[in-house]
Amino acid sequence: MHVLYSMQNSGNCYKLRLAMHQLGIAFSLVDIDILKGESRTPEFLALNPNGKVPALKLDDGRLLSESNAILFYLAEGTALLPEDRFCRAEVLQWMFFEQYSHEPYIAVARYWLSLVKGGRDLKAHLIDDWMDRGHQAFAVMERHLEKHDFFAAGRYTIADIALYAYTHVAHEGDFDLSAYPAIRTWLDRVTRQKDHVTMAWRPAQA
Amino acid sequence: MHVLYSMQNSGNCYKLRLAMHQLGIAFSLVDIDILKGESRTPEFLALNPNGKVPALKLDDGRLLSESNAILFYLAEGTALLPEDRFCRAEVLQWMFFEQYSHEPYIAVARYWLSLVKGGRDLKAHLIDDWMDRGHQAFAVMERHLEKHDFFAAGRYTIADIALYAYTHVAHEGDFDLSAYPAIRTWLDRVTRQKDHVTMAWRPAQA
Repeated sequence: MHVLYSMQNSGNCYKLRLAMHQLGIAFSLVDIDILKGESRTPEFLALNPNGKVPALKLDDGRLLSESNAILFYLAEGTALLPEDRFCRAEVLQWMFFEQYSHEPYIAVARYWLSLVKGGRDLKAHLIDDWMDRGHQAFAVMERHLEKHDFFAAGRYTIADIALYAYTHVAHEGDFDLSAYPAIRTWLDRVTRQKDHVTMAWRPAQA
Repeated sequence: MHVLYSMQNSGNCYKLRLAMHQLGIAFSLVDIDILKGESRTPEFLALNPNGKVPALKLDDGRLLSESNAILFYLAEGTALLPEDRFCRAEVLQWMFFEQYSHEPYIAVARYWLSLVKGGRDLKAHLIDDWMDRGHQAFAVMERHLEKHDFFAAGRYTIADIALYAYTHVAHEGDFDLSAYPAIRTWLDRVTRQKDHVTMAWRPAQA
């Protein structure tokens, strides 16, 4: 069985719990609390030298890191990732957008403003920039979703999972989505997909 | 013929010129100078709403953005991207590492310290963080390259192209690579690949 090294309230980790649940892939969880430094222990660094969660240990012992690369691995050959070459590139385009233009502002704001005690004071000098860049990302998403139900290939894919993970909790990083009706409709559309689970969901442990 | 919207001294754009040259894919260039705001004109935003280069207009008129997504598109079915599912995920893992943990410090430092006049003063408060995080990324690469000739699949792939683009010009962002012998050996190994071209190379225009 795959083993997911995961922090429960990390959106990047949630992507994989959601995708594996929707794909019917059995896995067990190992909780890693990055706030307690558990991703920087010698044991964890031996597993993932980049010191980050999520990491997925496959049932054959091989390890993958980077949430969106793991999503791609899990989804190959399933309904969550199209076969068509252009559509696959579109899926990846939105996943790279998520990691470069979305997560570093929207997830990072949530991390410091909601998860880390005293983070708001510690990072006060960065908040304006997070807000500006986060809203730039939302504006790009809104413009796309005004004309499309999903991000790529005209259907629900891992690109939607990747972007849903931190968008649906953006308010925990002070972001107000009231100016983005198409994003809010899309968030609701994602929650109505078969076998959707929330960030709180965990697999039953053996 | 494909059309690449590109800034000549952008590493993200260089990735695609290098890959298309090595793959024997004919393309023409449209120069977009982001320092002059040319990626933010209404015409360019109509093409790529995220307002960034590179963007690739395929010969059928469809558009792709995000350098690493475009690399994946171009390399599917070629020697630069393995067929094996795990190896493909490894390639993507390093490409997401590049966009999340490498480019935002190493490329951004080069941009402000070498390309933008007055950038060193304007961004003085960020330089220490760029240096810390950039060296963290180099340390992860060094540890991998001490045991492997390339980043994924035991051979030269688009993961190497993605990481080469800004690593080989890291000194332009004040990074000193003398502490990373395995990275320096790998840089040299990349330049010795068949049909390697430098960042200055441009296709002959029709």
